[in-house]
Amino acid sequence: MNITEKILSQKAGHEVEPGEIIEIGVDLAMSHDGTSPPAIKTFEKITDKVWDNEKIVIVFDHNIPANTIGSAEFQKVARNFIKTQGIKSHYIHGEGICHQVLPEKGHVEPGMVIVGADSHTCTYGAFGAFSTGMGATDLAMVYATGKTWFMVPEALKIEVEGSLRPGITSKDLILNIIGEIGIAGATYNTAEFCGETIDNLDVESRMTMTNMAIEMGAKNGIMEPNKATIEYVCNRTGKSKDQLNIIKSDKDSNYLKEYLFNVDDMEAQIACPNDVDNVNPLSKVEGTHIDQGFIGSCTNGRLNDLAQAAAVLEGKQVHDDVRLIIIPASKEIYQKAMDLGYIKTFLDAGAIVSNPGCGPCLGGHMGVLSEGETSISSTNRNFKGRMGDPNSSVYLANAGVVAASAVSGFIQNPDSL
Amino acid sequence: MNITEKILSQKAGHEVEPGEIIEIGVDLAMSHDGTSPPAIKTFEKITDKVWDNEKIVIVFDHNIPANTIGSAEFQKVARNFIKTQGIKSHYIHGEGICHQVLPEKGHVEPGMVIVGADSHTCTYGAFGAFSTGMGATDLAMVYATGKTWFMVPEALKIEVEGSLRPGITSKDLILNIIGEIGIAGATYNTAEFCGETIDNLDVESRMTMTNMAIEMGAKNGIMEPNKATIEYVCNRTGKSKDQLNIIKSDKDSNYLKEYLFNVDDMEAQIACPNDVDNVNPLSKVEGTHIDQGFIGSCTNGRLNDLAQAAAVLEGKQVHDDVRLIIIPASKEIYQKAMDLGYIKTFLDAGAIVSNPGCGPCLGGHMGVLSEGETSISSTNRNFKGRMGDPNSSVYLANAGVVAASAVSGFIQNPDSL
Repeated sequence: MNITEKILSQKAGHEVEPGEIIEIGVDLAMSHDGTSPPAIKTFEKITDKVWDNEKIVIVFDHNIPANTIGSAEFQKVARNFIKTQGIKSHYIHGEGICHQVLPEKGHVEPGMVIVGADSHTCTYGAFGAFSTGMGATDLAMVYATGKTWFMVPEALKIEVEGSLRPGITSKDLILNIIGEIGIAGATYNTAEFCGETIDNLDVESRMTMTNMAIEMGAKNGIMEPNKATIEYVCNRTGKSKDQLNIIKSDKDSNYLKEYLFNVDDMEAQIACPNDVDNVNPLSKVEGTHIDQGFIGSCTNGRLNDLAQAAAVLEGKQVHDDVRLIIIPASKEIYQKAMDLGYIKTFLDAGAIVSNPGCGPCLGGHMGVLSEGETSISSTNRNFKGRMGDPNSSVYLANAGVVAASAVSGFIQNPDSL
Repeated sequence: MNITEKILSQKAGHEVEPGEIIEIGVDLAMSHDGTSPPAIKTFEKITDKVWDNEKIVIVFDHNIPANTIGSAEFQKVARNFIKTQGIKSHYIHGEGICHQVLPEKGHVEPGMVIVGADSHTCTYGAFGAFSTGMGATDLAMVYATGKTWFMVPEALKIEVEGSLRPGITSKDLILNIIGEIGIAGATYNTAEFCGETIDNLDVESRMTMTNMAIEMGAKNGIMEPNKATIEYVCNRTGKSKDQLNIIKSDKDSNYLKEYLFNVDDMEAQIACPNDVDNVNPLSKVEGTHIDQGFIGSCTNGRLNDLAQAAAVLEGKQVHDDVRLIIIPASKEIYQKAMDLGYIKTFLDAGAIVSNPGCGPCLGGHMGVLSEGETSISSTNRNFKGRMGDPNSSVYLANAGVVAASAVSGFIQNPDSL
């Protein structure tokens, strides 16, 4: 059995099989400022008490501080729910993006089943958890009962070998993979990442990959916890390695399909408008005019992304025709970036640094695009209108390429800046 | 003659009298991301070339980064205008709020006539300039011709004596004055601030006072430049004192009305909903529930305000039921506040620190209030619906009182925290 099947079997109390429909308990359920109110509305039609007020986490990240009267009303609804239900874990004061905050605050462990009313909930697979996004209505049932149903997914084995060249990141790797597999190529499948390259990735880089599993339609992205991950979880949860439910795939696991990627010669990858699988090597789109750069999001707003951007921007100036917006994924990252001098580097270079949260990733505020404008972004989606006007365009890249492009005014390889 | 009459006489080329209508040239004209596009639209009906591309300053501050497709479109219009007209001075990448950025960047000098398409353009009176806000249509004529008309205002002499007690600021003083004179009590008059207390104020504290002259209807607020102001201007413009046009009021100047305020025993002042002249001493409203605190704006988002807030927040925690939003008035202030450790103090206390700009002051984004919510704010206006829902409320206070209130969850004197 593979990791996902083993986790689901533990929860189901029997050995599950792909295609089987199971109803199981979850270990953690999450919603944010955008999805909590509709979940709460449905929840209140079902019951008046959550199943477990210690297993629900609510994070405000999509529109923080509130950008409209509507979002302020939404946040009021969620705050009232937190109070009336006595929800213990809430991060509603700008602590950061849910998918960054949950691991940081020690809520995520290997072997858990985690659901969240946000499509990028698959991020926690980097820690060896089964985690997936669901609609607010489905989450309402979880809030009420602590249970949900799944069809046990078939799995894709995505093995990666070789070493990433300097400046090439796991963002390039996952874009490369999505470009190959396609935006619907893993629909309702597990995307299980493995191999020496994955084993060697740090925790942040792993999160970038599982985060984008949904971009090929996967039910969940997952990896066996590596040494760095176990250390991270122990550090964040206060548990020892022995207390963790570390699950690995059997060597003879069955997969629907197996892929092998070699990254030795891989150059930086760019997802071009308007699909995440419209992936080209950087060299093919270099020189494309841009109006905005954004470094942030649950995909690439972490400390290693900011370090990469700071290395590019040190002593340089953002092009006057470009606005570069940088938003750390969490307050912890923001504080570390301040201590390390990155924030000063960003400000000196002419970037705008705003408060942790999702920012302009989904076109809600803090960098919305107007008609005909183009952004290069370290985020996860470039669908038509994703960051603003339906006739605006988004290129997805790693943080270093975004930074270099902001300096040049066109899509730019940092190495030739 | 008083300062205002002398400045206008210099420009008119003859001795002007109150009530006289004059057409004069201006030294500087300013618009921001909200007012540039309507000004440009009208300008383009008049002519195709600005009168002087070195005397126009455009600042993006109201919605930065762009919070909607509409604001992104507005900013695109302004950027195109900057390019096609060759506007030399533009601060469109988060440099901060226009009224802070213009003096910082050396655009403001004593004796100038400055107009801007923003009502708080009166701020520059702190530097001994005649400065006033106007509508975007009027500003379009200035962009086209460099000239505008004024009725020479009658002046109110507002003399202040005594020493402000520790923790009491020029914000308390100006609120006290507006409470006395009323929101329409200085309509189309000059509010000339003078006396030992004014002479002893630092530049930032002076700016807070002239900034709010419009809140009693004044055409302009003005002060004789004091030593600190002259030093500031010399430092920012690279000019010597001898090169400045420092103008003072004659001892025998005529005033429509004269006021004398003594601040020796003045406690902190709070403007209560929904009028800026609904002013009460802090002790009278202490204990009022709040949902949000905001420290920022062209009124009180400067370094001394942040220092005052940091002193209150050091080692304390913002109340869990309150969101405290802190937005430095400029990037320069933000960087200094970072160097001085204030930003760390704010983050540690649980505040949200966002990028320089107007923020939630006018209810546009970054802290909009929902129905029934109450904010205490270091800003300048508390009219019905100013920061969001028509049924939300705003109390105006100094930054220290806002910080203390955010810790308590109700309006709070920092001294009794």
